[in-house]
This record gives sequence, structure tokens and C-alpha cells, in this order.
Amino acid sequence: MTISAETPYRLRYGAEAAFDVPAEWTEVLELQLAHRSVRSYRPDPVSDETLTALIAAAQSAPTSGNLQLWSVVAVRDNARRSRLAHLAGDQGFIEEAPLLLVWLADLARARQVTTELASPSPGDPDFSAAEGADFVEAALLSFVDVALAAQNASLAAESLGLGTVFVGAIRNRPLDVAAELGLPSNVFPVFGLTVGHPADLTETAVKPRLPQQAVLHHERYALEPQAAHVKAYEDLLNAFYTRAGLPTSWITRVAHRFGTTAGLKGREHLRAALKTQGFELR
Amino acid sequence: MTISAETPYRLRYGAEAAFDVPAEWTEVLELQLAHRSVRSYRPDPVSDETLTALIAAAQSAPTSGNLQLWSVVAVRDNARRSRLAHLAGDQGFIEEAPLLLVWLADLARARQVTTELASPSPGDPDFSAAEGADFVEAALLSFVDVALAAQNASLAAESLGLGTVFVGAIRNRPLDVAAELGLPSNVFPVFGLTVGHPADLTETAVKPRLPQQAVLHHERYALEPQAAHVKAYEDLLNAFYTRAGLPTSWITRVAHRFGTTAGLKGREHLRAALKTQGFELR
Repeated sequence: MTISAETPYRLRYGAEAAFDVPAEWTEVLELQLAHRSVRSYRPDPVSDETLTALIAAAQSAPTSGNLQLWSVVAVRDNARRSRLAHLAGDQGFIEEAPLLLVWLADLARARQVTTELASPSPGDPDFSAAEGADFVEAALLSFVDVALAAQNASLAAESLGLGTVFVGAIRNRPLDVAAELGLPSNVFPVFGLTVGHPADLTETAVKPRLPQQAVLHHERYALEPQAAHVKAYEDLLNAFYTRAGLPTSWITRVAHRFGTTAGLKGREHLRAALKTQGFELR
Repeated sequence: MTISAETPYRLRYGAEAAFDVPAEWTEVLELQLAHRSVRSYRPDPVSDETLTALIAAAQSAPTSGNLQLWSVVAVRDNARRSRLAHLAGDQGFIEEAPLLLVWLADLARARQVTTELASPSPGDPDFSAAEGADFVEAALLSFVDVALAAQNASLAAESLGLGTVFVGAIRNRPLDVAAELGLPSNVFPVFGLTVGHPADLTETAVKPRLPQQAVLHHERYALEPQAAHVKAYEDLLNAFYTRAGLPTSWITRVAHRFGTTAGLKGREHLRAALKTQGFELR
């Protein structure tokens, strides 16, 4: 299969990337490769049936040991969405989208199960502190679980003709978000996801990614060759930025993000906020 | 649309769960809802073209700020896969699968970009320490990025008729895995994913999840009602476990995982291992 595959590879990697495609091509690959962020929505609501389907897709994602260490709050109320938009960097598209999903790392349910619902057998150790949930491992399990789930929901939405965008800025003021959503201890907002009917798909475009050779390693990892791939990517992405009327230079963006603490724009307090919400990160 | 939708909802939530389905149903939803872990593989290899497609799907997933803070090592070498299987709890299916993808949180590339490739403009602060990468926020970005990417790859594989399973046990001895894969500082193995042609699909089954009401909240989060949902789930999953010939009780499994430090089976050292690999988690 070549025609429909060639185009998505070209948009992701540039015209010069030459990849052979599998003998079989699928609608899933087609949709995944066509992904773009959508930040402009029509006011039409997302139906209850659609929300059910998105969450069923999310719950069908893999979850480590079937622990299911995540939850999600669906926010449709205009006033609440407006307040959350303010907390997440005053981004207007959060108000515009009819549905905001706030994805939560959730160790509270596992703690409740461990300390209140389990009936220890004779010889079992003392489970009453749910000590295992205090560790980085437990937090990592929940962060990975919620991301796997949310990606399924996002792709499911796209398959239904909806558009989405992840909102990391929900972590700008996580304790205020927690208060707004009534989150108890051991529940933390990891990211948002706006969902809605795209207002104008031509407004967005498939964004090129790093050359596949930069991220895919065979048998052992190699850092040294990546500089050349990054430089090639800088040129490819600058052409994209220029077409989109945006400031150029991926390298500059990365450097401004990680060069100093100020680049984190408040999220340097994330560890303290996690601790306040009961994530000890031992 | 009802027939094909009813069945997947029933397998995920039990026969008594009654959900309306969207007017439109999609192949993506169908595939997502049919997900099951596959731990038994035929020896047939996964082709280069297929690997390319899986990684292209992974790279097409959303990535916060287009930072792309992940990499992946494809391990096909039998001896290396055997050594990694040993490091990941001696799980035989890792040796059996023709392809093991080890998914990496990667702040090394961003550090290299920040400290070596960027050309600060007059007035820019000093980027030479890439201080922003030392924070929990940077680590979280990389954990979420790599999970979004891997879920796309996993679903892409399933769309091509392949089976996968995530391998969290790659974190049992992460520094030994890092040595085996030549990982530099600021690169950390988050999970593995075995990929191959399923040996016997009847051997696996769609596993029920928690009632959707337990994980989906409207406007504000509620912990209190979850105990009843957990108890209903305990019964539903016990029926599944019994059919599969497995020990029963989800509640007991969760309690044994989080009740004590011992339940983490060595992964209580994850924070120390992350620090050794340069993840300061400030």
C-alpha cells in the first residue's frame, strides 16, 4: 500500500523521508498519522453517548496490573470551564470547547480499597497505611495509566470527527484546580483535554516530528548521532513555522523551556503541589 | 448503531451495564474496546516496515509543546531479549516475542539541545545548566509523552493484527536495563512493550474494567460513591477470574500491591534509580 501511506509519512517527516510502508495499511494508522491539535471549536455539544464511548475507549487501554489508577472529570458547565481556563493560562479555547476532560492520577481509590475494603487474611501484613502508595513507583503507575487512557479517548474522539488538544497548563495552578474540582488527597490533575467539533480544520495542520532515526534506536541507545537529526529537524520545522506564520526555531523553544527554572512558568512548584495532595514521591 | 457496540460494552462492563451508543460507531472504537493483553506469540518476525509504521504512529501522538521527550529501543536480538526478560522478572513471553520495545523517558536530547545546540541571543539567561530539566515537571512531561506515544504504537500494532503487552517489570532493575541498552544520563526505561503475532487469541480475553461511574465524574470528583462500584466490580471480575482459572479478588490484589512497601517488589527503589540516571525530581 503506497498512496495513502506516503502522504502521512511525508507530512510527519518531510518530503525527503523515504520509508517503505507495510503490506497492510489500516484506518487506525491513517487516523493516527493525521493527528493535529484542534484549538477552535463550534459550540455544538458533545453528546452523552459520545462521552460514554470516549471513556469506554479510555478504560479499554492497558493499565498496569489492572490497577486502573486514574479518574476523569467531565466539565461542561460554562462558569466552571471559564474558571478552569483562567487557571490554565487564560487560554480561550478551553472556554470555547463544549467539553473539558480533566484527567486525574488517582491513588485515592486504591488507598480506599487497601485500607477500608480489603479484608486481610490471617498472616497478612498490616495494610492500614497503604504504604506502597507513598512511593514514586505508585505515582508513576498513575501518570502512565492516565496517559494511556487519555490517548485512547483522544483518538476515539478523532475517529468520531471531533478535535482535541491536551492542556498541560492545568498543572500551572494544580491546587486551585483541585479545589475547583473537589479533588481529595491522593488525586492530582495531570492534564486537561478539550473536546469538540472543529471550527475550521484548515486552520490546523499536521506538525512534523523529529526524524524517526532520532527517537528509534536498534538494540542500544545512541545520543551522539542525534545532534545531526535535530539540525535537520530545525530546518524542516522552520519551514512549517514560516508557512503557519509562527516564530521559528525548535531549538530555541526547547532551550527556553529547559534552560532555566523560569522556563517552567510556575510548574517548578509541581513537587510541592503533589506532596500537598498526598503524593509523597518517596 | 447497536449490534457491534453492545458486545464490547458488555465485555468491558458486564451484561447489566446499559449504555446508549453514539449514532456513529467507528473501527477505532471497535478495536480499542476489543483490546486484550497478548503474552503468547508465534516466532514470525515483525517486519521493518511494520516497525516504521508503529513508530510513526507513536510520533504522531500529542507531545507537550512538541518537546518530544521520549525515545524507544527496538530489541530483536535473542540474547539481549533473553537478558532483559531475566531483568524483568524472568517472564517467558519477553523471550518469545520477536520484538521488545523499551520505551524511554528522554531528557538527554532536550539537555543536549539546550546546552550544546542552542545559540542564546543577547539578553538570554544562562542556559548552560539546563536547570529546568531537573524538576518533577520535566520528568512528568517525559513520562506522559512516552505513554501517549506507546499507546498509539500499541493500538497501531493491534490494527495490523499483532498483539502486545506492556511490561512494567522493566522497572524492577532499571539501572541494569540502562546498562544493557547503553542509556546515558537523563534517559530512563519507563516500560517495555512486547509485539508479535498472537499464538492463540482464544487464550486471552477482554478483561472487565471498573464501572464507568467509578472513574467518570461530572463537574466535581466524588470518592464516597466509589466503594459500592468497587464491590460490584469485585463480583464481576471474580466471575472473569473463575472462568480464566485465576485466583479471585481484585480488592485483595490492590491491597497486596499497595498495602506495604514489600508489595512494590523492589520498585520502592525507583526514586533512587531515577536520581542515579540524572532525574533529580526537584
